[in-house]
Amino acid sequence: MTGTGFRIDKEFIASHNGVRSADLFRDYDALGERLLRRGIGIGEIAAGAGALAVALPSWATGTGGTRFGRFPGEGEPRNVFEKIADCATIHQLTRITPRVALHIPWDRPGDPRELAAFASSLGVGFDAMNSNTFEDQKAQRLSYKFGSLSHTDAAVRAQAIGHNLECVEIGRALGSKALSIWIGDGGNFPGQVDFRGSYERYIESCKSIYAGMPGDWLLYIEYKLFEPAMYSTVMNDWGSAYYAATAVGPRALCLVDLGHHAPNVNIEMIVARLLHLGRLGGFHFNDSKYGDDDLDSGSIKPFQLFLIFHELVNAAGKGGTAGNPGPAYMIDQSHNVTDPVESLLASVEEIQRAYVQALLVDRAALAECQQTNDAVMALRTLKTAFTTDVAPILASVRVSAGGAADPLAAFRESGYRAHKGKERA
Amino acid sequence: MTGTGFRIDKEFIASHNGVRSADLFRDYDALGERLLRRGIGIGEIAAGAGALAVALPSWATGTGGTRFGRFPGEGEPRNVFEKIADCATIHQLTRITPRVALHIPWDRPGDPRELAAFASSLGVGFDAMNSNTFEDQKAQRLSYKFGSLSHTDAAVRAQAIGHNLECVEIGRALGSKALSIWIGDGGNFPGQVDFRGSYERYIESCKSIYAGMPGDWLLYIEYKLFEPAMYSTVMNDWGSAYYAATAVGPRALCLVDLGHHAPNVNIEMIVARLLHLGRLGGFHFNDSKYGDDDLDSGSIKPFQLFLIFHELVNAAGKGGTAGNPGPAYMIDQSHNVTDPVESLLASVEEIQRAYVQALLVDRAALAECQQTNDAVMALRTLKTAFTTDVAPILASVRVSAGGAADPLAAFRESGYRAHKGKERA
Amino acid sequence: MTGTGFRIDKEFIASHNGVRSADLFRDYDALGERLLRRGIGIGEIAAGAGALAVALPSWATGTGGTRFGRFPGEGEPRNVFEKIADCATIHQLTRITPRVALHIPWDRPGDPRELAAFASSLGVGFDAMNSNTFEDQKAQRLSYKFGSLSHTDAAVRAQAIGHNLECVEIGRALGSKALSIWIGDGGNFPGQVDFRGSYERYIESCKSIYAGMPGDWLLYIEYKLFEPAMYSTVMNDWGSAYYAATAVGPRALCLVDLGHHAPNVNIEMIVARLLHLGRLGGFHFNDSKYGDDDLDSGSIKPFQLFLIFHELVNAAGKGGTAGNPGPAYMIDQSHNVTDPVESLLASVEEIQRAYVQALLVDRAALAECQQTNDAVMALRTLKTAFTTDVAPILASVRVSAGGAADPLAAFRESGYRAHKGKERA
Amino acid sequence: MTGTGFRIDKEFIASHNGVRSADLFRDYDALGERLLRRGIGIGEIAAGAGALAVALPSWATGTGGTRFGRFPGEGEPRNVFEKIADCATIHQLTRITPRVALHIPWDRPGDPRELAAFASSLGVGFDAMNSNTFEDQKAQRLSYKFGSLSHTDAAVRAQAIGHNLECVEIGRALGSKALSIWIGDGGNFPGQVDFRGSYERYIESCKSIYAGMPGDWLLYIEYKLFEPAMYSTVMNDWGSAYYAATAVGPRALCLVDLGHHAPNVNIEMIVARLLHLGRLGGFHFNDSKYGDDDLDSGSIKPFQLFLIFHELVNAAGKGGTAGNPGPAYMIDQSHNVTDPVESLLASVEEIQRAYVQALLVDRAALAECQQTNDAVMALRTLKTAFTTDVAPILASVRVSAGGAADPLAAFRESGYRAHKGKERA
Repeated sequence: MTGTGFRIDKEFIASHNGVRSADLFRDYDALGERLLRRGIGIGEIAAGAGALAVALPSWATGTGGTRFGRFPGEGEPRNVFEKIADCATIHQLTRITPRVALHIPWDRPGDPRELAAFASSLGVGFDAMNSNTFEDQKAQRLSYKFGSLSHTDAAVRAQAIGHNLECVEIGRALGSKALSIWIGDGGNFPGQVDFRGSYERYIESCKSIYAGMPGDWLLYIEYKLFEPAMYSTVMNDWGSAYYAATAVGPRALCLVDLGHHAPNVNIEMIVARLLHLGRLGGFHFNDSKYGDDDLDSGSIKPFQLFLIFHELVNAAGKGGTAGNPGPAYMIDQSHNVTDPVESLLASVEEIQRAYVQALLVDRAALAECQQTNDAVMALRTLKTAFTTDVAPILASVRVSAGGAADPLAAFRESGYRAHKGKERA
Repeated sequence: MTGTGFRIDKEFIASHNGVRSADLFRDYDALGERLLRRGIGIGEIAAGAGALAVALPSWATGTGGTRFGRFPGEGEPRNVFEKIADCATIHQLTRITPRVALHIPWDRPGDPRELAAFASSLGVGFDAMNSNTFEDQKAQRLSYKFGSLSHTDAAVRAQAIGHNLECVEIGRALGSKALSIWIGDGGNFPGQVDFRGSYERYIESCKSIYAGMPGDWLLYIEYKLFEPAMYSTVMNDWGSAYYAATAVGPRALCLVDLGHHAPNVNIEMIVARLLHLGRLGGFHFNDSKYGDDDLDSGSIKPFQLFLIFHELVNAAGKGGTAGNPGPAYMIDQSHNVTDPVESLLASVEEIQRAYVQALLVDRAALAECQQTNDAVMALRTLKTAFTTDVAPILASVRVSAGGAADPLAAFRESGYRAHKGKERA
Repeated sequence: MTGTGFRIDKEFIASHNGVRSADLFRDYDALGERLLRRGIGIGEIAAGAGALAVALPSWATGTGGTRFGRFPGEGEPRNVFEKIADCATIHQLTRITPRVALHIPWDRPGDPRELAAFASSLGVGFDAMNSNTFEDQKAQRLSYKFGSLSHTDAAVRAQAIGHNLECVEIGRALGSKALSIWIGDGGNFPGQVDFRGSYERYIESCKSIYAGMPGDWLLYIEYKLFEPAMYSTVMNDWGSAYYAATAVGPRALCLVDLGHHAPNVNIEMIVARLLHLGRLGGFHFNDSKYGDDDLDSGSIKPFQLFLIFHELVNAAGKGGTAGNPGPAYMIDQSHNVTDPVESLLASVEEIQRAYVQALLVDRAALAECQQTNDAVMALRTLKTAFTTDVAPILASVRVSAGGAADPLAAFRESGYRAHKGKERA
Repeated sequence: MTGTGFRIDKEFIASHNGVRSADLFRDYDALGERLLRRGIGIGEIAAGAGALAVALPSWATGTGGTRFGRFPGEGEPRNVFEKIADCATIHQLTRITPRVALHIPWDRPGDPRELAAFASSLGVGFDAMNSNTFEDQKAQRLSYKFGSLSHTDAAVRAQAIGHNLECVEIGRALGSKALSIWIGDGGNFPGQVDFRGSYERYIESCKSIYAGMPGDWLLYIEYKLFEPAMYSTVMNDWGSAYYAATAVGPRALCLVDLGHHAPNVNIEMIVARLLHLGRLGGFHFNDSKYGDDDLDSGSIKPFQLFLIFHELVNAAGKGGTAGNPGPAYMIDQSHNVTDPVESLLASVEEIQRAYVQALLVDRAALAECQQTNDAVMALRTLKTAFTTDVAPILASVRVSAGGAADPLAAFRESGYRAHKGKERA
């Protein structure tokens, strides 16, 4: 087992919070007073905010890149232990990222139990396992150049199924309870892929994986409009994912990555549909302007993020997620020009901000507006929640839980990255 | 019953064809010789081409418009009889448009039997009935401003259901066998519409209509991403339409309008999915560059039109349309700057062209390319069919069936529009 | 001259404000204290907020519609006097909409001086004149079906030029200082329009209009990607508008309508470009999800609206708008499902909110982040401004100027619409 | 100098052509007869087709990839000599790709004169030089992570300028006459980049490069909407490129890559605008469905490709390209799932097909349709050209020039790739 090297200590955080506490109390109280006028108890909202949990992707702790290159940063993690150390640091500062999603083979542990113990010692656990059949690994017998779970060659499909089952095995040892499948299968040319045959083969492969999962695991089916396949993808949209999930079994659910849709599509409505049909498994949070840009959550379309959380809170309140075990929230971003830990800290805050704003929606008033078709007031009801500055709640919840009032500032002040730059040279 | 006024007579068409026949025979034979080298019998293709049937929308015989205005043309039809006369003229020249789709209330007949007899006397019948709950009619009791089949008010829903059932009644008298439902329901503001409630109400309303249809009728559910609702639509995409169809009953099917998708979406794949799942009911053909532009079929993306027909022909060959009764082909266009009859003549030809090109695809070779992941040759197999100039087949098939070698030229030479300009002053 | 009928009186507004004043003072002070910690004087921001002026479009006071129909509301204005009365009411409540943009011929006054006096008596003036050559009027000699300022027929162009000059004449009498030109010219078919010829003719026509304008007038050239023309538009994008403006003359400037761009386009960058090149004339504010949806400003993408104002404020601070006379802000929306006055009240507030948030940006800090490529902190600097709840500033500024603390609530409480429903029956 | 290894010999090609000649002559004659009826001399068209020249990008001879991985193929070229050998083979078979575009540093020659001699010995020359400041090279002093020609740090800009001037030097030795600049500069976050400052710095850097170019060289400015920067790019669209070109100098021109636009944008109109304004420098051909997919030319939107060539032919006929030196045609594609040489052979054919179809347009008839606003016939005039099967012309022109009747088939028959698989092991 590796050591963790430099860690931010509690005293540092306490000191960081100490100098901010007077202002924070004052702002929190002023906000509480304003919310009370709207009939909202700030304590209840704060409790909700603290109960949110967002999983961190191990792969996002290193600098990302595009097909045009990658510009590495200082002190990037060199292995899964260092990735978990970074994730634990994020959890330490934000207090709402208690689990890490691993990616196999990038994060394949030599000894899963050792890894589990290491993570546990840092206060984090494991979220969904993520398989990879969209690229070839060294020493891999058969290539995924022309597909994996949907390949025309049964031997390739068997290899891909086997890889997914290996992910499940690793996950069992780590305490994970879900497998997330995203494939790159598809075509770059009209005619290249038989739309029907490839979809049928994909579903059959998923059935084989599902059959090999423990009975309390969930299978997340992630769809994507394009990339890496540039003309057609086998698992292309929510409709295809929905039908596949129903064909595979009751614990097969759909995973929504915010960047995987066509331009202009109303994503919050897709979320509502999948909740309605009992097949929403989880989210990959990120933001985008053009395609699957994998930008920081909330950096481009914060109102959309709020509207998505509004649907989630709404469904929860109606008991409408009966079929849904409570969606799993994960981040999936590519940090090409920033310190990945900083981007993750900022993203976690934006996700929590949108969630808290959604908690503030006066749902009874909104339902009344909807019933009477009062569109102006319906929007205003949402906007009243969205324009509320909930920063004092976010900070207070973090401080109460032992996190940092201002995670980004604390991270910079701590010198974490510079330390890692030396340790991980 | 109204008279028809001026009609293009057989002798005129015969004369039109006569002067073109020598060239046509020569071109047909030369093409036949080339196709034979590819192992294709031109006669078989011609037979397939002649078997195509495309329904004409009554409403497209008048000049369309946008929200910025409408510029009427000369001699537009003033009533359903004149619309049917125009459609019959198109069928006379093209020979593959034997049915007319009516729109109620715009085409509500005083006496359906009279209308049926009139149409029959002109050689045309009736296709799917189209209801209208997206605008208010004079003397309508309740408004559809805030929805129809999904309205929050049960009384509005009942009115809309009743209107659809009236369409069925009229259709029964006319010999129609299908009802096509497209609604404008949706919202212009975030929060305006309860996504789940509105969708549930829509499905319930469709069930009521379905229950009132004769047992041999089909119900087509048409989805659309946006417009007239500009933030969210209740029946928004193929996934929503697919689930709704399964909830309503086995004779409820999805209708694909080519202009109703988000930018960049792979429509041919949606077609393949719905065929696969046994829920493709029909098409509304048109073309578009930006949104639901309702431009002439094949005018912007002819290769996409070919790829769609390729999926249809493909599915038919595989018996894959088991659950599908054979999709119903309809045109749905808005002719804002052209003579509507001319645009329809040109569009029918483009649709037939794409269909014939799709018939030319060497499916065995393509299947082999797909099996071996030979992407370059897969595309080439499609392109060989697409770049074949099938004009001689189209013209020959028309001439053989008594139509015009060149429908557009014949229409102009006939003076039809000028005559109508006087008759319909 | 018509009378105004029911007006909201000052006492009503004072009473409305009175019951809100205690809370408002408290919220304003709390915010002031928070801003002070960020080095910002709330009074300065409030002064800036009060200096904003947004023009109202006369045509948006009536219910809008789509090509699928229009659902009129109660008490819509029946003529230009009633439209101005509605606009004056909006100004009365918001205090930042002192001018009305007229549309000719819809608002052609019998006697411009009478109209000017009427408007003046209600406390409003006139903004840019808007010509209309995208639809035909009764008794119009030549049709605009195939274009206006770019038509192939010189006589049609002359007619369109003449109409624009008539708008200038009316505007002179009213005190307007600008003409805004938006045309529907373009094509629905590949090949229909000669791209080069039509663009040259458009520019020549603009030169003629420009030559006929008073020397202190500005000419706004508005571009649009599509609609009503659905394949190509003559004045299609900012690049085309920019070159045309330079060809026409120094007082020819570009007008940006937020809904007139392709999907995903970075509009704030276009704004920056036009400011940089000294050719940004003005804005048409609205919001959209799909195309030119003309939804209420800030209802879909409030962060984008903020980023646009950020560029405007930024340029002003740098003196970068040297060539720009200060952009003219106008609203251009279509209110299809709401009370138009309510939508305008809400939109004005959203525009002012985005502007005030932009004023809060710490530009020195941002410039430092940009210089050092600190992307995370650059975004955070913007987000700190954007997530500030500036509602207390907006309300205080309005109250100080004699407007309503909550314009929407005041409007509903006043019974204005019900009164107009009777007066305008 | 390296040897070339296996080459396809003339006898092989002659034999390949021999077995196809009878059918080819027959098809050519039949087409000639049909075209003559339309008043077109097939010989003149063939002469035009043979005069087309398309440059090949050295970098496209290897297998491309996405950020999700790369799947190498057999026998890929390992250095610039092998790349040129592949390009020469393509020219040998197609006869219209006489020049290669190099990319520095990927293709930096040890001795440019040796490389020039090598290329000359294989019958090919050099097209535009392509610089690379979008990724970091080993041993590079300063990083381009945050930009290059527009970087905030003058030292980085100087380094990037120097690199471009080095490209010019190499190009001079090779006989190139143009430098093509595409940068990755831009931002992933709102606020990251100062829009105005970065654009000004870019223009200043281009001026420095321009000043260092020989007087007979052209500078191509390539714009792109997004990627690798995902929120904003410094050289974002044709308007920005146009203004920059005018600011830099008369020999600075714009380069249009078909995949660099927003969804739905009318690219043929942009081509017409740049031709009109005398600033169209060249093309990067490829095709795409979603973003900058870099798919094979003509594989997705062949009609669009035809419409673009129609504008080019149109402008040439009108002498409208006075300011343009005749656009430079280049291919820029990423061949991820095919043999790159096969994709290039197929793409060259599709480009030539579109060009020949454009030559067939009856421009006098089209001009008359445009003048009289006969939209249906305008489109038909284009469609008559587009649906003509020009394969016999393409094959004949190749055979006449010593190329292969069917380049793709000849390439496969030759065993070229298998030979290279051994030679380049």
